[in-house]
Amino acid sequence: MAKRDFLLTPGPVNVPRRVALAESQEIIYHRGEEFAELLQRVDAKLKRVFRTQNTILYFTSSGTGAMEAAVTNLLSTQDEVIVVEGGKFGQRWRELCHAFGVKHHVIQIEWGRAVRPQQVAQALDAHPNASAVLTQLSETSTGTVYDIEQIARITNERDVLLVVDAISGLGAVPLEPDRWGVDCVVAGSQKSLMVPPGLAFVSVSERAWERAEKSDLPKYYWDFKAARKNLYFTPFTPAISLVMALDEALDIILEEGLENLLARTELYAQATRAAIHAMNLQLFSERPGPVCTAVRVPQGTEWERDFRDAPQGFSDQDLGRPRPPEGEDLAHWAHRRHRGQRRVGHHWGLGADATQAGTPVRAWGGGACGPRGLQESPTVSLWSVRHFARAQSGNLPLHS
Amino acid sequence: MAKRDFLLTPGPVNVPRRVALAESQEIIYHRGEEFAELLQRVDAKLKRVFRTQNTILYFTSSGTGAMEAAVTNLLSTQDEVIVVEGGKFGQRWRELCHAFGVKHHVIQIEWGRAVRPQQVAQALDAHPNASAVLTQLSETSTGTVYDIEQIARITNERDVLLVVDAISGLGAVPLEPDRWGVDCVVAGSQKSLMVPPGLAFVSVSERAWERAEKSDLPKYYWDFKAARKNLYFTPFTPAISLVMALDEALDIILEEGLENLLARTELYAQATRAAIHAMNLQLFSERPGPVCTAVRVPQGTEWERDFRDAPQGFSDQDLGRPRPPEGEDLAHWAHRRHRGQRRVGHHWGLGADATQAGTPVRAWGGGACGPRGLQESPTVSLWSVRHFARAQSGNLPLHS
Repeated sequence: MAKRDFLLTPGPVNVPRRVALAESQEIIYHRGEEFAELLQRVDAKLKRVFRTQNTILYFTSSGTGAMEAAVTNLLSTQDEVIVVEGGKFGQRWRELCHAFGVKHHVIQIEWGRAVRPQQVAQALDAHPNASAVLTQLSETSTGTVYDIEQIARITNERDVLLVVDAISGLGAVPLEPDRWGVDCVVAGSQKSLMVPPGLAFVSVSERAWERAEKSDLPKYYWDFKAARKNLYFTPFTPAISLVMALDEALDIILEEGLENLLARTELYAQATRAAIHAMNLQLFSERPGPVCTAVRVPQGTEWERDFRDAPQGFSDQDLGRPRPPEGEDLAHWAHRRHRGQRRVGHHWGLGADATQAGTPVRAWGGGACGPRGLQESPTVSLWSVRHFARAQSGNLPLHS
Repeated sequence: MAKRDFLLTPGPVNVPRRVALAESQEIIYHRGEEFAELLQRVDAKLKRVFRTQNTILYFTSSGTGAMEAAVTNLLSTQDEVIVVEGGKFGQRWRELCHAFGVKHHVIQIEWGRAVRPQQVAQALDAHPNASAVLTQLSETSTGTVYDIEQIARITNERDVLLVVDAISGLGAVPLEPDRWGVDCVVAGSQKSLMVPPGLAFVSVSERAWERAEKSDLPKYYWDFKAARKNLYFTPFTPAISLVMALDEALDIILEEGLENLLARTELYAQATRAAIHAMNLQLFSERPGPVCTAVRVPQGTEWERDFRDAPQGFSDQDLGRPRPPEGEDLAHWAHRRHRGQRRVGHHWGLGADATQAGTPVRAWGGGACGPRGLQESPTVSLWSVRHFARAQSGNLPLHS
């Protein structure tokens, strides 16, 4: 497994050793007081990362499960909603509404662009019966961050529910659900929280609870009311070992401090973007955020061939190589790293072949990969894709 | 955590060290070939434990999630089904049908009794439009095992789908889906498979796939067709660390051999029942199986007080202390133990206060707890509840 030391994906991310060890502790019984105390402790800490006082519900599932929970609990058969679709995960909101027969109006955004809050206002004007807006905080497939604060201003003016998929965004992109008025925030364990996948979270505001009381869409496993009733035990057997892991991961986050973590992630993202500019490569997103940076792979270059040949897992296959516009490839690098990974920076694998990109880039150099190095000279620490691919296949050491 | 060395619950069960270590390995990316190879390997082994060649689908959820998946994929709005309800988990089938608006006829079994195959035949005669029977293999809340082989004979004669919740039963109770003709078997990671909770499995026969093609109930996360399409990647981010743990746990099971494991579990169960008889205590179930043994707690005894005062987690709180008949308590002991736990046997906590139960029982004796000891003298190795409670609270060593 050593060859897979560094994941470049927004999630799963590498799990700190402390978290992995917590995960492998002796299992405790989820109907005992010890579990309830554990989940209460986790809940208090998670609320600090969510920056909310709203109820947080816990589901054993991927983030998509929690998105389904939000749809089936907050909406009803007669509802109309607005869906922001600017990438693969906006598409998922649309597909969920379709699956459960909820009438939905899509704000179709060209992939890589950010929804303008004004577009949300216009959609709500055009569909005055719309009861909710479903959107992303960070659309992972394009690395684009949306302006949730401004969107919340619009939904709050109209008493419309705002449901935000922050699965990749939470803990990377600033988000203030209570201050801004975000009714429902969906997140998952395997992104910024540095826990293996399998747990998902949904925060539910008072206004959202009112909707949940009236919702008539079918649900059982995702039932918000059952989840609230059994808040610190969860209604069905929870992923106990992942809750133990989360307990430790939240300690790591709060020891660093959420603000410091957000600032560090943003710094990595900015350095990456600076490096991309320095290489004359093109960012894909018009409003790139700290979750991940998407760059167009220059067609016809050696890098393109490397990219195509790279072992799966090198680039974010989770995104299904969305390839907009037609015929192009996107490469993504995620920027969320735990502090133990700082020394090698977040630039693993980033970098076109210097010659192909026409920019002098000191490839192979790993010496200055820490944040300081990135600040001083963002182009110094780029590694060629090929180097990464070779290192992954075991022919080269990962630390050179 | 040391005080929680032994769980008495059907699930979660104690996780062998090898499995816990596998779980804490470096995370791999679930869209890479390495993960597909892992899940393929797991799948081949799990099919041997399921004793089926049918497709097995993987869900990141508790077992209940997989029950919901079976309902929403195999049934349609116009369907009528037969539900066997002889305990808390039969109730769950009923609640799921209710939640998704599926017309259901309940065979109501007194808790602790096993459904007679003849009752299933009668229900199908009375409701000739019924398209499926939903039942348990082992009804965990009462420790009762149903005769799935005979029930399958009846459903096969009539081309009715047979859906079996084997969440606690798989790997403890003999089950032959392909030989008997069971269309859908639901299981979970945290029971006999000795993995932490968070993964669930559904096997799907060809006949069941035909139903799935026509099903019109709403689903997204649970969609069988999406799961089959992405079989070795799963459609949404899977609980990767639990899949790694499962890989190891299946090795442990297959090293011992499924037949040996079933025989060992059955031996523990039989020894427990012999011990209960020897103590003049009453079994709760008329057809007790190897998953867990339920015994009526004699009212007005010291044991009853101990039972009520016992730390949570000692008895199976998961069962919600079902207490049928009215006013009684049930104690459960699960019998599924991995081999490393053999030395201390499975009798932890079993045993009424000898004086109260009116039977000479050598309480406190832990010397003969292995299977051999149990066979020779099933009453020798009983521990008093109080001893267990004290040991748990740290005042006594667990091994005396």
